[in-house]
Amino acid sequence: MPAPSTRIATLTGDGDDGWSLFYRARAMIAAGEEVLELTIGEHDVRTAPDILDEMHRAARAGHTGYAAVPGMAALRRAVAARLSASHGRAYGPENVLITPGGQAALFAAHHAACDEGDRALLIDPYYATYPGTIRAVGAVPVPVAARSEDGFQPDLTALAAAAPGARSLLINSPNNPTGAVYSEASLAGIAAIAEAHDLWVISDEVYDSQVWAGRHIPTASVPGMAARTLTVGSLSKSHAMTGSRLGWLAGPAEVIAHLVTLATHTTYGVPGYIQEAGLYALGLGPEAEAAVAAPFLRRRAILLDRIAGHPRLRAVPPDGAMYVMLDIRATGLSGAAFAAGLLDAERVAVMPGESFGRAAAGHLRVALTLPDDRFAEAVDRLVRYADGL
Amino acid sequence: MPAPSTRIATLTGDGDDGWSLFYRARAMIAAGEEVLELTIGEHDVRTAPDILDEMHRAARAGHTGYAAVPGMAALRRAVAARLSASHGRAYGPENVLITPGGQAALFAAHHAACDEGDRALLIDPYYATYPGTIRAVGAVPVPVAARSEDGFQPDLTALAAAAPGARSLLINSPNNPTGAVYSEASLAGIAAIAEAHDLWVISDEVYDSQVWAGRHIPTASVPGMAARTLTVGSLSKSHAMTGSRLGWLAGPAEVIAHLVTLATHTTYGVPGYIQEAGLYALGLGPEAEAAVAAPFLRRRAILLDRIAGHPRLRAVPPDGAMYVMLDIRATGLSGAAFAAGLLDAERVAVMPGESFGRAAAGHLRVALTLPDDRFAEAVDRLVRYADGL
Repeated sequence: MPAPSTRIATLTGDGDDGWSLFYRARAMIAAGEEVLELTIGEHDVRTAPDILDEMHRAARAGHTGYAAVPGMAALRRAVAARLSASHGRAYGPENVLITPGGQAALFAAHHAACDEGDRALLIDPYYATYPGTIRAVGAVPVPVAARSEDGFQPDLTALAAAAPGARSLLINSPNNPTGAVYSEASLAGIAAIAEAHDLWVISDEVYDSQVWAGRHIPTASVPGMAARTLTVGSLSKSHAMTGSRLGWLAGPAEVIAHLVTLATHTTYGVPGYIQEAGLYALGLGPEAEAAVAAPFLRRRAILLDRIAGHPRLRAVPPDGAMYVMLDIRATGLSGAAFAAGLLDAERVAVMPGESFGRAAAGHLRVALTLPDDRFAEAVDRLVRYADGL
Repeated sequence: MPAPSTRIATLTGDGDDGWSLFYRARAMIAAGEEVLELTIGEHDVRTAPDILDEMHRAARAGHTGYAAVPGMAALRRAVAARLSASHGRAYGPENVLITPGGQAALFAAHHAACDEGDRALLIDPYYATYPGTIRAVGAVPVPVAARSEDGFQPDLTALAAAAPGARSLLINSPNNPTGAVYSEASLAGIAAIAEAHDLWVISDEVYDSQVWAGRHIPTASVPGMAARTLTVGSLSKSHAMTGSRLGWLAGPAEVIAHLVTLATHTTYGVPGYIQEAGLYALGLGPEAEAAVAAPFLRRRAILLDRIAGHPRLRAVPPDGAMYVMLDIRATGLSGAAFAAGLLDAERVAVMPGESFGRAAAGHLRVALTLPDDRFAEAVDRLVRYADGL
């Protein structure tokens, strides 16, 4: 066998993706053990039947051939309308590329921003695929740590120090894994740094329908940022359509034109019947998104109530997204050790903070993704485990 | 706006993708003109209703969450079984990555084979996306011309001359746009060159169910080639599922493992309900594929009958795929000039050979993609246009 490319062989950096606990929990479940699983960002409900029925209608009506590579005009317009409403400025279809999921949009955005060897900034803690996505375009991921004590808002001093010579900065608000929603001050600071160093800002806003405190400020809506922001969106989280792989990338028309060319050579579009289903889903309006988000707000309250005043468990303020980050450093354990012990002793699976970079060491990410009664049971077990340490 | 990456800004090379005729024909149709369109490789039938019903069943049964990134185990096994049957050696699921379409597989294969600046060979004429796909991973496309006079079999002397220092060779048999099916001698020559220069061979075999003369020899079935071949497959052409974006990449388990990591960071899997539909479609067996292919064989005969003995129109032997390449050099026109004149005078759209590289200049690619009666009418008009020159 010839050698594979150096780029693909080094995608995961040191090779440990930090997800061994997740795979162990999945193996236990496959072996018939009952595990309360709060690991990944997947709803406990499936995609709504009416969305699937619309998909089937479109497919049976013949929308099964090659779809337009940039996306259906009607869906691009619908996404543009959703962006226009939240950003307070006009988007057109020429500002939108439909992608096979948010992950493909993250990859395409870095492809558009970075050449081989370029430095690409990201905030630590981060969603697990971020560094590998940056490496997949030949760029060098440069994590910039945020602090638990700051509620995982970005550290603007550290960012400014890392920015010289970088090409891009990847941010994510509402944030996975931390639940942070970036403040106006954070985004103003990011904008100043991006302008000073001519950075592309790649803004992953796939959790924009899940905000529990404060408000979501789209990065491109910050003065001066529309021309240098690539916004990643998706129907995965907002409409419980994770498996349908339907997302978008929004930005200046000139760069979207380049990204359409990239799509022609990497994915060749998104199934037309899935786009029709997405168009229908967006047409259901904000109420439908709020209904999908509502259970996470209830479970956030269940968790915060149960750990209130606990001497060793502290929740980082969970302002958005479907996760709560627990600071467990007072137990003296690492996140990995706590999570492993919890799985063994109580059959509850949560993600060690170490799975998401160095800045989340000594934390646990708890996904709010079980029905309320089972979620409450899982939290009770977690508290019992902490109490017994 | 910051500058986009040099890589994305130079994806299309000189910027002319050679598809202006296609876009002009589409615009005429959109304006209400009746055009007999024989441009792209899209069936005149839609995906079969039973396949779509199976997709809907799987979706309504709840297969709407994240699917396993490498592909469903059952589908990987089914693809492995199809490969085992045609290759005469055992494939397992660990040799197969499910991709969102053949184009994504082509991109992933070059990502696995080539680093920045590496030379990647391809045979000219070529499918339109090939050079840009190579540029998308930062590699340098190096076209090696095949000759019409050789029935567009690869020129082994030219290939051997281009191979030193290259990392990969992309081939496609049955071939789009030429209809060539590579002979045993061609593949043996390719194998010798690949071995001598330690090349990855990326073998696009998406037309393997459409062979009209001779037989399809899978590249990886040639002695010594399994360890250095990445085979691209798809249900697009074999099952009229172009819009569903369901394909695969097959190769040594070690490189497939790297490719699964790449998929995690670029696409994050393929919709589960589409995979279930693909599993059902593969289960329909070779008869179903033959039924989808049959109309192209009929239309090939219609075309060959009508131009037999024509003084200025010569068909390159169309051994496979859903196209016939016509040599029109005896008219004195370029392919582009003939196609433009034909569209204006007769409202028939075919692709100029120049859209597929330099080696197909003075040719036309005729897609066999209209119902028989309308196809015959289109050919009659084409002959009439040639006669009137």
